Amino acid sequence: MKWIALLVTLLFLQLKALAVQVFPANWWPNMQWRQVELIVYDTTGLQQAGMKVSVNYPGVKLIGVKPATNKNYVYVTLDIAPTAKPGKLNLQFSYTKNITKQVPFTISARRTGKGVTYAQGVTSADFMYLIMPDRFANGNTANDRVAGMRDQSLNRDSIYDRHGGDLEGVQGKLDYLKDLGVTAIWLNPVLENDMRNRTEHGYAFTNHYVIDARLGGAKAYKDLVNAMHGKGMKMIQDAVYNHVGLEHIFYMDLPDSSWFHWWPKFTQTNYREQSIFDPYKAKAQHDVLTNGWFVRAMPDLNQNDIHVERFLIQHALWCVEEFGIDAYRIDTYLYNDLAFMNRCNAALLKEYPKLHLFGETWVHGVLNQSYAVENNLDVPFKSNLPGVTDFQTNLYGIVPALTQDFGWTSGVSQLYNTLAQDFVYKHPEKQVIFLDNHDVSRFMSVVDKDTAKFKMGLTWLLTARGIPQLYYGTEIGMAGVTHPHDGDVRRDFIGGWKEDAVNKFTSEGRTKGENDIFKLVRTLANYRKNTPALHSGKLKHFVPKDGLYIYARYDDQKTILCIMNTSKEAKKIDWNDYKELIGKYTKYKNILTDTEAVLKADYEVGALVFDVLELR
Amino acid sequence: MKWIALLVTLLFLQLKALAVQVFPANWWPNMQWRQVELIVYDTTGLQQAGMKVSVNYPGVKLIGVKPATNKNYVYVTLDIAPTAKPGKLNLQFSYTKNITKQVPFTISARRTGKGVTYAQGVTSADFMYLIMPDRFANGNTANDRVAGMRDQSLNRDSIYDRHGGDLEGVQGKLDYLKDLGVTAIWLNPVLENDMRNRTEHGYAFTNHYVIDARLGGAKAYKDLVNAMHGKGMKMIQDAVYNHVGLEHIFYMDLPDSSWFHWWPKFTQTNYREQSIFDPYKAKAQHDVLTNGWFVRAMPDLNQNDIHVERFLIQHALWCVEEFGIDAYRIDTYLYNDLAFMNRCNAALLKEYPKLHLFGETWVHGVLNQSYAVENNLDVPFKSNLPGVTDFQTNLYGIVPALTQDFGWTSGVSQLYNTLAQDFVYKHPEKQVIFLDNHDVSRFMSVVDKDTAKFKMGLTWLLTARGIPQLYYGTEIGMAGVTHPHDGDVRRDFIGGWKEDAVNKFTSEGRTKGENDIFKLVRTLANYRKNTPALHSGKLKHFVPKDGLYIYARYDDQKTILCIMNTSKEAKKIDWNDYKELIGKYTKYKNILTDTEAVLKADYEVGALVFDVLELR
Repeated sequence: MKWIALLVTLLFLQLKALAVQVFPANWWPNMQWRQVELIVYDTTGLQQAGMKVSVNYPGVKLIGVKPATNKNYVYVTLDIAPTAKPGKLNLQFSYTKNITKQVPFTISARRTGKGVTYAQGVTSADFMYLIMPDRFANGNTANDRVAGMRDQSLNRDSIYDRHGGDLEGVQGKLDYLKDLGVTAIWLNPVLENDMRNRTEHGYAFTNHYVIDARLGGAKAYKDLVNAMHGKGMKMIQDAVYNHVGLEHIFYMDLPDSSWFHWWPKFTQTNYREQSIFDPYKAKAQHDVLTNGWFVRAMPDLNQNDIHVERFLIQHALWCVEEFGIDAYRIDTYLYNDLAFMNRCNAALLKEYPKLHLFGETWVHGVLNQSYAVENNLDVPFKSNLPGVTDFQTNLYGIVPALTQDFGWTSGVSQLYNTLAQDFVYKHPEKQVIFLDNHDVSRFMSVVDKDTAKFKMGLTWLLTARGIPQLYYGTEIGMAGVTHPHDGDVRRDFIGGWKEDAVNKFTSEGRTKGENDIFKLVRTLANYRKNTPALHSGKLKHFVPKDGLYIYARYDDQKTILCIMNTSKEAKKIDWNDYKELIGKYTKYKNILTDTEAVLKADYEVGALVFDVLELR
Repeated sequence: MKWIALLVTLLFLQLKALAVQVFPANWWPNMQWRQVELIVYDTTGLQQAGMKVSVNYPGVKLIGVKPATNKNYVYVTLDIAPTAKPGKLNLQFSYTKNITKQVPFTISARRTGKGVTYAQGVTSADFMYLIMPDRFANGNTANDRVAGMRDQSLNRDSIYDRHGGDLEGVQGKLDYLKDLGVTAIWLNPVLENDMRNRTEHGYAFTNHYVIDARLGGAKAYKDLVNAMHGKGMKMIQDAVYNHVGLEHIFYMDLPDSSWFHWWPKFTQTNYREQSIFDPYKAKAQHDVLTNGWFVRAMPDLNQNDIHVERFLIQHALWCVEEFGIDAYRIDTYLYNDLAFMNRCNAALLKEYPKLHLFGETWVHGVLNQSYAVENNLDVPFKSNLPGVTDFQTNLYGIVPALTQDFGWTSGVSQLYNTLAQDFVYKHPEKQVIFLDNHDVSRFMSVVDKDTAKFKMGLTWLLTARGIPQLYYGTEIGMAGVTHPHDGDVRRDFIGGWKEDAVNKFTSEGRTKGENDIFKLVRTLANYRKNTPALHSGKLKHFVPKDGLYIYARYDDQKTILCIMNTSKEAKKIDWNDYKELIGKYTKYKNILTDTEAVLKADYEVGALVFDVLELR
């Protein structure tokens, strides 16, 4: 009977081997990051008496085995030579009494076209569109609820429940977006968020190596990215290094307590970025900032743990190569350990030099923001982050420009002053500018539903320096405020669901007012796309006068004059004041009205009108 | 008769020689600046046929003679060797037909005690008091009106006329100021302002080498500086390099048109400092900023003219050595040519390394201000200015702290954020902080005559980082606003004139409320003077919470806890949040109430109360 017992045991171990997980489950030869630390995880206990690990595959060398404190985990480091061929290998775990486990691992073939067909980066020539996938379009109703996942809500009447939007839905609207002039899509996170509730936003990862099944999983993500690349569009992934969801597999079953920051009692970050650079900071408050939890449901990762660091960096690299994404938006940038972020950014940029990385910097002050990004500061810590979400040209720029009365330091004077401070950035043109996003009140509500002001905001967005980002629905003037419920700014794009009575993805489904706004965006976005002077030319601006702010985007070929009258009165313009911009030109084409005329001395710009003139 | 004619001619020339002026009229051996360019001026025509210039004095060499375009002027450069002995020499101008003019020039003996008894600089250990000399005290009624000067007004009922205050008046109040805790006096300019009107402020020089006779002239100035040094006090002179008065001798009779910036029609500076550093500036606007006139009555000097440069730098050096001043406040710093300013500052600091120089920077934003001063910016232009008048901790610091409701970015949160940005300065402690000055509304009016807030402002001023500056009368709570008349903030200090019914320089003359404020200033200023931890110690501050802002000034010897409750409610303090500050201490002395107590867990700070506790 002994051989039967042995057989049964072997069979059992074989089955168990299938349950073993490895993060990541594949890697590539010819990567700069060739030494990969795999986290091998087996809930039935991976570490057992006499454990030995071996690998037998040409070009792949085992260079490290480190048992974690938790016996379910072992860190296994492989060196993958450039010569290694794609194929499958087994990590063999052997124990006393000839017991073994085979853990499969794949050497994948690398993508071709790095920097050309993927990892392309985004630049100021792009027009970025931000989508919350659950709220944009439901392409596949079969995945609206996924059996076994914790959040079984599905209720479009509640802004906190799931609505059923998915990646297939996004894919179905690519032509709509392309027509609008969009060249890049930033999706709120698509990684698995197997949390109990509030899973719509995606910022609480529960498994880094799984694309959320309710969005369509890895296949839908790959299909979407491929379809976008096929249409000349780029994909921006939302990275969250700072924290995970409370139901993350590595939090539920800790590899080691050193993976997270622990507090005697729940301690939330103070959200005060100042203590990063403040010469007068209290150490305790710096600790709270970087080690405090983002919210109760999101444990704070300890990025100083070498295994956490490798896990996060490898995952970032893995997503680029696995899915072919083109850029990363990085969540809560300043709450991360910034030294870790520099190492992470460096690894990504070493591997993918054209990749764009831009961090969320919801802070107050150009100086505060500049500390997070490549800058012209002579300070001990230097960030290598290429770009940020430019909250300064929003909070202290376009928002006061259109909501405050004009004054020496108010109204559009703030926008002027904020841009003048650009000298502190290494690459101001790499900042992502925006009117609104998933965390702030929609711009239509910010300007109190004043359509004239709203259009001026859009015109600024598409003529300003930087990479313009539009939040889904802003092209049809969706409104919404963050207080008391941030869900109000995350409402569905009407028409994205079959059952919707109207379809605002079509001109027929939109009201006249919505179509006006839509056309403005489409006109400007497409004009911008085809006009290097506008998207990548130099900027020259003049001190605002009585609410009138004039600037130009120009290169050797063209000059586009942007005339923003934030005042409640029409303004006559004395071209003598703007000789530097006008130069030899005598005529113009008004891009928004599609009319041509001579540049006359009595030029007048209406109250709350933003003229965009291509000089001729 | 021929010899009589010759005699008469010689006598006449002799007399005319007396009318010749030379700027400067004296210099010193052993100066770093040993090559002095003298401007020799003779309204009867200095340049005549066959002009030759010679000097015969041991150690003094003539190294340059350059006729100006205007025949009344010649630039004469002397090299003064360290070995030259004090004495008088003549510049001999000889012309055809044996005609000569003798222009006297003096080699003076240098002061002793550089950096110790004069040119001492001011530091954060000092407490600076700003006085508008015409408005503080009238020490000598004989000079109230000076015959021959253009402004013959004398009328204390008009805020734009002269009031008769003078340097002797200031000297008479030195004991009052010393008792208050003042260690340094900044006077609004004392140089001659022989303008037609509005001469009270002093910013329109008409002759750089004359101290205004209505203030007592050079003798009164020297007496005052000597008296101050005798009492351990320092003198700060107000420098104006950017412009002069319309009645300046060199504007009335131009040496060369290149001395000033000219415009086809009157063009005022736009006061927009941004175009100095703005990457998107319009050249035309940068020109207007730096070359536009400050006001109609103040022509803008062309600091790129080498003779203007030498004239201004030499005058700056001359005042230090001639009068023994200790520091310069520099007017309208950013409207100057900044490259010139760097050369001027460098010359002063080479000669007098301990001299403090601080520029007026009435700008908006720490970044904007930092550009003007020694900073940690990695930019092509680097300012060598040691300090500034810190408008940022005023406009975006103590003013909102006490006038705005508390919020994430409002109220005292602004003060916290502004100070956190100090990392951009090389020496934040060298900035001059203030509640008010001669150009802005008096702080008592800013806080709407709320005495509690006013006292909190004063307590901040005397516990904050930097060099505190008090405006005359603020110690007794004088009020005044700049609109519509800036004269309202330049009212007389009551008691400075014999005819005043009461004398607020004495406790008897002050109301109870005035005495309360006075005592607060005196207590804090004297405590600060004797407490290195407070004036030169480190600063550590905590994120404000509901209007409560806590910081400490500390060194190895002492910790002074500053508890600023800007809220309308009393606040209990949980010392656990401030462990880093409290350390081993268990007791405190309240500096303002002069009481000692144990640092208890239930410590409460009242609404709109600012406690200053020396920990024990």
